Amino acid sequence: MNVRLTLEYDGTDYRGWQIQPGGPTIQGILEEALAVLLKQPARILGSGRTDAGVHARGQVANFACPDGRDLTRIQRGLNALTPDDMTIRAVEAASPSFDARRDARRRVYEYRLWNHPWRSVFNDRYSWHVRRPLRVDAMREALAALEGEHDFSCFRAAGCGAATAVRRIYHNELFLWEDHWVYRVEATGYLRHMVRNIVGTLVQIGLGERDAGGLPALIDSRDRTQAGPTAPARGLFLVEVCYE
Amino acid sequence: MNVRLTLEYDGTDYRGWQIQPGGPTIQGILEEALAVLLKQPARILGSGRTDAGVHARGQVANFACPDGRDLTRIQRGLNALTPDDMTIRAVEAASPSFDARRDARRRVYEYRLWNHPWRSVFNDRYSWHVRRPLRVDAMREALAALEGEHDFSCFRAAGCGAATAVRRIYHNELFLWEDHWVYRVEATGYLRHMVRNIVGTLVQIGLGERDAGGLPALIDSRDRTQAGPTAPARGLFLVEVCYE
Repeated sequence: MNVRLTLEYDGTDYRGWQIQPGGPTIQGILEEALAVLLKQPARILGSGRTDAGVHARGQVANFACPDGRDLTRIQRGLNALTPDDMTIRAVEAASPSFDARRDARRRVYEYRLWNHPWRSVFNDRYSWHVRRPLRVDAMREALAALEGEHDFSCFRAAGCGAATAVRRIYHNELFLWEDHWVYRVEATGYLRHMVRNIVGTLVQIGLGERDAGGLPALIDSRDRTQAGPTAPARGLFLVEVCYE
Repeated sequence: MNVRLTLEYDGTDYRGWQIQPGGPTIQGILEEALAVLLKQPARILGSGRTDAGVHARGQVANFACPDGRDLTRIQRGLNALTPDDMTIRAVEAASPSFDARRDARRRVYEYRLWNHPWRSVFNDRYSWHVRRPLRVDAMREALAALEGEHDFSCFRAAGCGAATAVRRIYHNELFLWEDHWVYRVEATGYLRHMVRNIVGTLVQIGLGERDAGGLPALIDSRDRTQAGPTAPARGLFLVEVCYE
């Protein structure tokens, strides 16, 4: 039986989604818990990797489950066996062909900016604290140039293993939510650190260090060194993964 | 010079506002930091005590400051010397007679309920997790009976030192915010654990264990044993203190 998981996690204390040496990963913790429940080794496939320190509100994954298992009990067991910074929101039977990564049609990320002279006690773990006032109008001006299909090499981190740097951003916006500015972006897929590099560049525009009108030329340059710095991981959330 | 502080804190790791033995308190941490900055013992008076584990987004306090001190530097110094779960949002000169406790005209508290079968990773520290579905309509029905001037002995914790149990609730409501139910209440002052005892009683109503129509009789009883349990501290926030 093919089973689909939906989960949220606070990525602060993890080395990211994907199993790797040097510290706990979301995938590693989940597979360990699942192996205990299934009494056999387990492999969980995520819709995509989130980097170290990045959070998720709606990560999706799937795994092969022996037939006849009670999925409500598996959900309860996973929530009991995993730490408090992780919650499995849903465990559902999926079609045999469902693949959380390959079948994902759209991935939605949000990045939170805390733009205030003083740190926020309640949001510090989940936002980038930018002290100087941001000119949000200028940042918004830049958004249109990002939509559509482009070669996003200028926002691609070193070590990105993708075959091509062409991606399509369906929609991106910047809105106020609970005293935060939130950058929200929807695309089929992303290059390594792409969202954080876009945010780092938008913040430069907001601080008056870069011109909003220069974004098309920046994209055309395909040159990572021309774009802004990588925004910290703490502000980034994988919000939703959409399937057909 | 009389100085007014506005601050927020995550109360999880504190024994409450007021200095007492057995663990760190907000007042204690603030007074220690202020004494370092002023190079003399300091006394800070809060608008009211918050209990152990209760949070604040807009606590107000005042203290006597030697004349001629730069208040921006004091704010920066306090934020540097206090832990990350506390932020001083404002440091302002106040009139000589200003008293954060005596002059407070209205105190606003909010209580967050996470009503979902599964724990919330991002909100667990700041809400009471109620797993069974709440009938919010029934809870709202009960709110009208709480408004106005009443003897609130039925919601008064043992050890409350107030001279009288009569308080006036100006307004209370229950609204949805970011997937949470939030109980918001405005009154001049409160008895010990009053808001948490009200919430514990409202949740009983929401779970169908108590009738919304029974609230006037409960208040009339003046009997703490007739009301519901004390809701956990983690969900409670002192949101705002209003002055003339």
